[in-house]
Amino acid sequence: MALSFVGHQSAALDGAPTLVQRAVDAVNAHIVEHKLKVGDTLPGEGHFADALGVSRAVMREAFGALAALRLIDVGNGRKPRVGAIDGSVMAAALSHAVTTEQVTVGEVWEVRRTLELRTASLAAVNRTKEQADLILAEANAMIAAGDDLDQVTQHDIRFHQAISTASGNMLFLQIVRSFEPLMRIAVPAAWHTRVTAAQRRNVLEQHRQIAEMIRDRDAAAASAAMHAHFERSIGDILAGR
Amino acid sequence: MALSFVGHQSAALDGAPTLVQRAVDAVNAHIVEHKLKVGDTLPGEGHFADALGVSRAVMREAFGALAALRLIDVGNGRKPRVGAIDGSVMAAALSHAVTTEQVTVGEVWEVRRTLELRTASLAAVNRTKEQADLILAEANAMIAAGDDLDQVTQHDIRFHQAISTASGNMLFLQIVRSFEPLMRIAVPAAWHTRVTAAQRRNVLEQHRQIAEMIRDRDAAAASAAMHAHFERSIGDILAGR
Repeated sequence: MALSFVGHQSAALDGAPTLVQRAVDAVNAHIVEHKLKVGDTLPGEGHFADALGVSRAVMREAFGALAALRLIDVGNGRKPRVGAIDGSVMAAALSHAVTTEQVTVGEVWEVRRTLELRTASLAAVNRTKEQADLILAEANAMIAAGDDLDQVTQHDIRFHQAISTASGNMLFLQIVRSFEPLMRIAVPAAWHTRVTAAQRRNVLEQHRQIAEMIRDRDAAAASAAMHAHFERSIGDILAGR
Repeated sequence: MALSFVGHQSAALDGAPTLVQRAVDAVNAHIVEHKLKVGDTLPGEGHFADALGVSRAVMREAFGALAALRLIDVGNGRKPRVGAIDGSVMAAALSHAVTTEQVTVGEVWEVRRTLELRTASLAAVNRTKEQADLILAEANAMIAAGDDLDQVTQHDIRFHQAISTASGNMLFLQIVRSFEPLMRIAVPAAWHTRVTAAQRRNVLEQHRQIAEMIRDRDAAAASAAMHAHFERSIGDILAGR
């Protein structure tokens, strides 16, 4: 199947493409035609400006847009390279949507839950020994962190990302990574609603149970444990607002 | 809970922030501090350049990056405005990841399935009468389109987006929208693997069943019908590669 998404950024949704959009499309087309992979170098602004008959300023703007979307990497003086997908682009969109009240934290957590019930179950099937060990280590590190909320949050984030990695599907990982900025705010806020030691221990135990079910390759139990975790977590997030 | 994601684009992942990143962060901070909403106007480049002590060129680049991420809308001569979340940013990242073979179409379809089992079930609970009618209308339009593959694809895309809309969670809709460029390629490719009239009728019937289950407010049956649809669809996608 020939996959070409040239133009996905341009005319279809927004009317006539601007010069900059056409320049963006041309760079994407170049990547497709030359079957470039992550890290491969691209011609510079001058090459594309000449080939398209547009100004350097237009190409500079196009490269800036492509770099903002992480489709290319541009460094100081280095040649531009094909960029690797990372969660930061969706994270920026997501954070913006929450701060401007287009999406609620509860809605984001509902999407997280949907994805992470599945990553837990896939991780139980696909995890390597090292991945299972890492997930368990992060759950234990959350417990060891005690009342150091920064450390709890850090290991909580790594725990969920390690499970997504172990799912074996990179796209799950990148979407789950995009929740990171939001987790940095919401996890401590939810934690403050857990006032007794028993409540906190319960949350930590849930993480360890998920890790153990993944280690034991029990997909249904891993997914059920993740479900129980989110049932509580969504409640605490909403209580912590 | 005070939500501030200022800086999510900058130093944490990439080392010291550049001047442009600092400028991007400052605009995001302005949006948060002034509690701006979609469509609200922002000060121009000159204001931020003066306030931050950076050049117009730096601010222009920052505005370009923010516009590429759809965090702001900048038009010809108009004041910049706070942007609405739309699927195009994630669509660009996703299309790029597939064309550069960082993610397979099979992996994308697995994520789609995970999300859309849930949107089908949420839609059965949350849909309005009008939304249920629209979903059924799109399923019927797919059938009426006959051998017009462009029309089949168009209504297929609208069918899935209408279900996501009816889920009541905007974030599901925006992620499902981001699959649109990929569906424009993959749906016709999969369709070509369905060589008999019976195979094609079966796929069309699956869409109508999903629509009817959502209309009947049967969340479990809607989700099960969506599951059956994806089981077949993922198989056909992989066969069509």
